[in-house]
Amino acid sequence: MLKPSPFAPESLPHIPEIAGVRLGAVAAGIKYKDRTDLFLAELAEDSQVAGVLTRSLTRSAPVDWCRKVLPGGTARAILVNSGNSNAFTGSNGVVTTEKMVASAAAAVGCAMEEVLIASTGVIGEQLPVEKVEAAMPDLTKSLKADNWDLAAKTIMTTDTFPKAAFRDTRIGDIPVRIGGIAKGSGMIAPDMATMLSFLFTDANIPAPILRSLLKKAVDRSFNCMTVDGDTSTSDTLILAATGKAGNIAPTKADAPALDTFYADLESLLIELAQLVAKDGEGASKFITIDVSGAENDRAAKVIALSIANSPLVKTAIAGEDANWGRVVMAVGKAGERADRDKLSVSIGGVTIAKDGEGVSSYDEAPVTAHLKGMEINIAVDVGIANGKARVWTCDLTHGYIDINADYRS
Amino acid sequence: MLKPSPFAPESLPHIPEIAGVRLGAVAAGIKYKDRTDLFLAELAEDSQVAGVLTRSLTRSAPVDWCRKVLPGGTARAILVNSGNSNAFTGSNGVVTTEKMVASAAAAVGCAMEEVLIASTGVIGEQLPVEKVEAAMPDLTKSLKADNWDLAAKTIMTTDTFPKAAFRDTRIGDIPVRIGGIAKGSGMIAPDMATMLSFLFTDANIPAPILRSLLKKAVDRSFNCMTVDGDTSTSDTLILAATGKAGNIAPTKADAPALDTFYADLESLLIELAQLVAKDGEGASKFITIDVSGAENDRAAKVIALSIANSPLVKTAIAGEDANWGRVVMAVGKAGERADRDKLSVSIGGVTIAKDGEGVSSYDEAPVTAHLKGMEINIAVDVGIANGKARVWTCDLTHGYIDINADYRS
Repeated sequence: MLKPSPFAPESLPHIPEIAGVRLGAVAAGIKYKDRTDLFLAELAEDSQVAGVLTRSLTRSAPVDWCRKVLPGGTARAILVNSGNSNAFTGSNGVVTTEKMVASAAAAVGCAMEEVLIASTGVIGEQLPVEKVEAAMPDLTKSLKADNWDLAAKTIMTTDTFPKAAFRDTRIGDIPVRIGGIAKGSGMIAPDMATMLSFLFTDANIPAPILRSLLKKAVDRSFNCMTVDGDTSTSDTLILAATGKAGNIAPTKADAPALDTFYADLESLLIELAQLVAKDGEGASKFITIDVSGAENDRAAKVIALSIANSPLVKTAIAGEDANWGRVVMAVGKAGERADRDKLSVSIGGVTIAKDGEGVSSYDEAPVTAHLKGMEINIAVDVGIANGKARVWTCDLTHGYIDINADYRS
Repeated sequence: MLKPSPFAPESLPHIPEIAGVRLGAVAAGIKYKDRTDLFLAELAEDSQVAGVLTRSLTRSAPVDWCRKVLPGGTARAILVNSGNSNAFTGSNGVVTTEKMVASAAAAVGCAMEEVLIASTGVIGEQLPVEKVEAAMPDLTKSLKADNWDLAAKTIMTTDTFPKAAFRDTRIGDIPVRIGGIAKGSGMIAPDMATMLSFLFTDANIPAPILRSLLKKAVDRSFNCMTVDGDTSTSDTLILAATGKAGNIAPTKADAPALDTFYADLESLLIELAQLVAKDGEGASKFITIDVSGAENDRAAKVIALSIANSPLVKTAIAGEDANWGRVVMAVGKAGERADRDKLSVSIGGVTIAKDGEGVSSYDEAPVTAHLKGMEINIAVDVGIANGKARVWTCDLTHGYIDINADYRS
């Protein structure tokens, strides 16, 4: 049993029913004992879907399946298991995926191409597909509208707390809801950031527009978050829109009627991404890194991620040490333009280095106090132009080693 | 006091005199108490030099100085201090560097442009240059030909053991010697790998040819070694050739007369690079990673370094866990071509995965025994073409966190 992250919220936010979505979960015994490990989301007919998948070249068979069917733009079911990622399982793994998809399609009553699937857990072991098939009747019976809590728990692996978020929003004057769950705490890096996240809305939005909104929001949320720079073979994020809210379908992604919906979608994704970073394996501090003064926003993000992924920066924060020299090192290795003699670094809002050297007169007391806290802010200006970016990460502690030196056993 | 690496050799190899080189060291009190921290190498007139420097964009003032004078191709002195890297020290740092250079030039009796300099230690604090100037008379008095042991110890920072290597070699029929020292244990990554290494030979080799030999040998040694993926602002490697051996100067880098010399230079650099990886902060295992079957050698090296830099792979090895799934993950995120369904992975010579899936019948006993040892071999074939590469790294343990969460204090 893992020690819960100090950032674990006292309880999950309450998520109400989202019209057109039913959720179910059962204990299929895939790997874990005495906990649910199989999750099914049933979506209303004509539900539109968009997804973002890992770019790993050794991606799992379930990810390959989603790549194949997502362009269709509709789905009726999402089936997810924890405990086994069905990754690097050869041709058997492909067969397993297709059997799982067929089983969910039969249960929901749809074509296989309308089923999305995700598996998370150990890599390289065959998934006992017969357990999934055997569990399907009970899983179907368990479907109900207010099952968010169980769904969030079912998809967990090394997570120390379930993750969910909700927004009441609108498209034009029509009230719309967005709810989502996420899991992930290791192998967290851009490209994608979390291992798994599933978002549901009752909005009526055609798949091409849904895709466009989702891509932009993921670039500003999960793709700004990193734990250890490693990329999973299974990362999958799906957004399903049932259309039950009854709004008039937008005809383009930048329609003014979508402004509020997009803003709420982005803020919900940021909330989920931050929950994942806060559950980073062994995390004791949540770190926000702002980079400004870069050649452009893209360069700023590269520099920010170089800082966020540096083991030396992350261990310094774990040690509550204002070692800004390591921040400078990470700026230097990022490979993007930076003016060494105009660089400034601040921690907790206090400027520690300016114009390329330490500020000898700075007051260390508030910085020390800031570093003893759980939420750390580092800001760097690299003195070139106006590009800026913000990314999130956590510190690197003994807990990370404890978890990862003995995960498989 | 750091716990010595389990790989620390019982003693330094004996390095005999190298004609045209004298070494000295003193305790200047720059940061450490009761140990030598200032090193000077005096080179015979007309000594030829080549160097490889960090590509960090926030490199230190001493690195900037070397970049400026190395193209001249000759040097009479190399001055090195530990305890303070004189990096990110603004215009003051530039003045400090020039004062140190001037001081060494006066001591040895040469032009400032014939002095190379390196500083290692804390970033962002002003280096007390007056202590260096005050120590210069004693430093000059300490120069002698057989001072390798002291030199190797003087340049250490978080190193747990001094590092030196030697080769008796030849150019044509003429006996030639190469000796070198290195330091480095954190911020170890390609581009460059070690923080500091200084190599000396009595060979007669013009600077342009020396550069060409050195670049090739560094690409195959230090640039194949990584500890934590971080890149120092101070990485510096210098090769000085005094010409005292009396061989006829080669006229091109691929002259057959240089074959033996080059092979011994490369093997010496590999030995030093491996010593640095073996002293990786907190290292308990030394890991050799071979990648074959890649699109070309460059792609193979990218994949090998992706494996070597993966915190999840490094923690699995620390935990003596044959978690080859993480190796596959690291192959996938490298971004180079790999055929997931032809991938094979072996550990300690035993094939664990083949044709994209686990070998169910493999004998786990020899793999477990191998992982309990200190020298770990991982081999991956990615099934595309014939590109191959070998890199070295160490595992990621609690020791790394201990050292880096509290280095500055």
